Amino acid sequence: MLKFDEQKQIDSVNGALALRGQINEIVDGFCKKGYKNICWLGIGGTYASSMQAVVHMKEKSEIDTFVENAAEYLATGNKRIGEGTVIVISSVTGSTEEMVKGVKKAQEAGAKVIGFIDKETAELAKMVDYEIAYPTNEQLKFFMVADRFMYNKGEFPEYDDYYAQMDAHLANALVEVEKCADEFGKTFAEKHKDDSIHYFVGAGNQWGATYSYAMCYWEEQHWIRTKSIHASEFFHGMLEIVDRDTAVTVFVGEDSQRPLSERVAKFLPRICGNYTIIDTKDYELKGISPEYRGNISHLVMHAVTQRIDAHLEKINCHPMEIRRYYRRLDY
Amino acid sequence: MLKFDEQKQIDSVNGALALRGQINEIVDGFCKKGYKNICWLGIGGTYASSMQAVVHMKEKSEIDTFVENAAEYLATGNKRIGEGTVIVISSVTGSTEEMVKGVKKAQEAGAKVIGFIDKETAELAKMVDYEIAYPTNEQLKFFMVADRFMYNKGEFPEYDDYYAQMDAHLANALVEVEKCADEFGKTFAEKHKDDSIHYFVGAGNQWGATYSYAMCYWEEQHWIRTKSIHASEFFHGMLEIVDRDTAVTVFVGEDSQRPLSERVAKFLPRICGNYTIIDTKDYELKGISPEYRGNISHLVMHAVTQRIDAHLEKINCHPMEIRRYYRRLDY
Repeated sequence: MLKFDEQKQIDSVNGALALRGQINEIVDGFCKKGYKNICWLGIGGTYASSMQAVVHMKEKSEIDTFVENAAEYLATGNKRIGEGTVIVISSVTGSTEEMVKGVKKAQEAGAKVIGFIDKETAELAKMVDYEIAYPTNEQLKFFMVADRFMYNKGEFPEYDDYYAQMDAHLANALVEVEKCADEFGKTFAEKHKDDSIHYFVGAGNQWGATYSYAMCYWEEQHWIRTKSIHASEFFHGMLEIVDRDTAVTVFVGEDSQRPLSERVAKFLPRICGNYTIIDTKDYELKGISPEYRGNISHLVMHAVTQRIDAHLEKINCHPMEIRRYYRRLDY
Repeated sequence: MLKFDEQKQIDSVNGALALRGQINEIVDGFCKKGYKNICWLGIGGTYASSMQAVVHMKEKSEIDTFVENAAEYLATGNKRIGEGTVIVISSVTGSTEEMVKGVKKAQEAGAKVIGFIDKETAELAKMVDYEIAYPTNEQLKFFMVADRFMYNKGEFPEYDDYYAQMDAHLANALVEVEKCADEFGKTFAEKHKDDSIHYFVGAGNQWGATYSYAMCYWEEQHWIRTKSIHASEFFHGMLEIVDRDTAVTVFVGEDSQRPLSERVAKFLPRICGNYTIIDTKDYELKGISPEYRGNISHLVMHAVTQRIDAHLEKINCHPMEIRRYYRRLDY
């Protein structure tokens, strides 16, 4: 399989899950001292992951939690960020300008920052109040933070059982998804390699995945045009431009917003002959209980889209690491 | 001028402004009794207007306020909506399924609902706790609610002066914008009538306008493909698919997020030969003080885009009232 190192991927996920001790120490500290609210601060891909954390918490929690876009925060401010605010961020490079300034501004307002900065020596890593350096697995890190906050508030009583399953089975389940999805990924990439535009639809914890897959992968890394639309909004405008040949893919997950995506998936065949439904339910996830599948739907979807990416990159002779303008021009 | 009845439009805006007495009575009642938070509940176009109200309040206010998408609320719920929540909604037809169910759910949770339902006899009009029936001017209605809440909290001390200017000058200022923008609207419509896709970029209170102009006007009413992107996110993915011929329009307003759109506007000429900047600053707005212009940028932009719509509809021989699927099929 292209770009697939099974053991490396298993180790990567298990290594991320092993951060839980460190994460819990920090979160438990906040819960002991008390906090006012939790803000997920991001931009681009990390903004998308932040949206996923918030919708995940919203299902279960009364904790005051919200997402803030770093650039908007710098321009408009946010009076809810201040003393007692816990900010959670993630950054691969640790040098994104808006994030560096955003963290500074939030800290000046009195907030404390938990940072998952992959590069320990980066500017952001030195700035944050609590730093955990470990590569990739951004959503998994965010969800571990969210889940611990909810557990401490009595909103996630299944926490121990849930994470016992994750520790034992998640990494293997995800590589199995990749293996099962590889043939699909190849067919999908072949079919859509020349798309003039591709529409991606999603909801729930898949919405952040949909938004970032369209923007951070197809647009930024494959240079193919996309539009992402929340399944809740599809019927309120966008549907009118769909016809027989429009390329539309619906990401269907298993969390509370599954019915929103299902509704689009059910409707599309009537008006479109070029649609694809990717349903996380079609993948086994050995060892994971049915009631826990919704929480990890976005990771399952990511495992599937990784297979698309691997083939699309090869078919289109377009290495995913090249950028036309990003960090190549000043702006 | 096409589709332009000056007196009718002046009367429409002034009639909306005259609702202020009614609005204030309701808002003052809530402020007297006390309330926990304010939720702007919408879907599609009303979701976009809700985002505009929230970003407008965020600039000045500590009030706990947020936007909720009606379909997502039905699927996932929102524990912040309950006793003490003031819900604000708007609906032209008063029969949108998600809104009817969403209002019911919110009321069952203990929230009270202020409704701007244009049709007094509609289902929603009968359901809401406070109904104000007056056609169109959705954002103006929302902002009057927001401004009164902020005024009562001491966060909008310029309220009386501001609304004295609005009452005296807004309606005329907006029709003058339309007159000034008509030639531009025609040229723009001629140039972009055949676009395979058109990108719209915006921020601040223009973001809701950008999102809804792309989706509710071009996609839904002109059947032309679009993507809307927040100016804060433009540099984090989407920029890579812009080239010489890509049609990109940036909506530049005058609120706190103006610099975010300006940044995109300044960058585009280097990589794109088919961009348009629409800057509200280019329009006079006689009688409106400079410091108040940011609050109404979205209305100015709407006056400009109305001129595009009028010409685009005629040039493309595509009446804006027809729908392919919306409310024509069951889904």
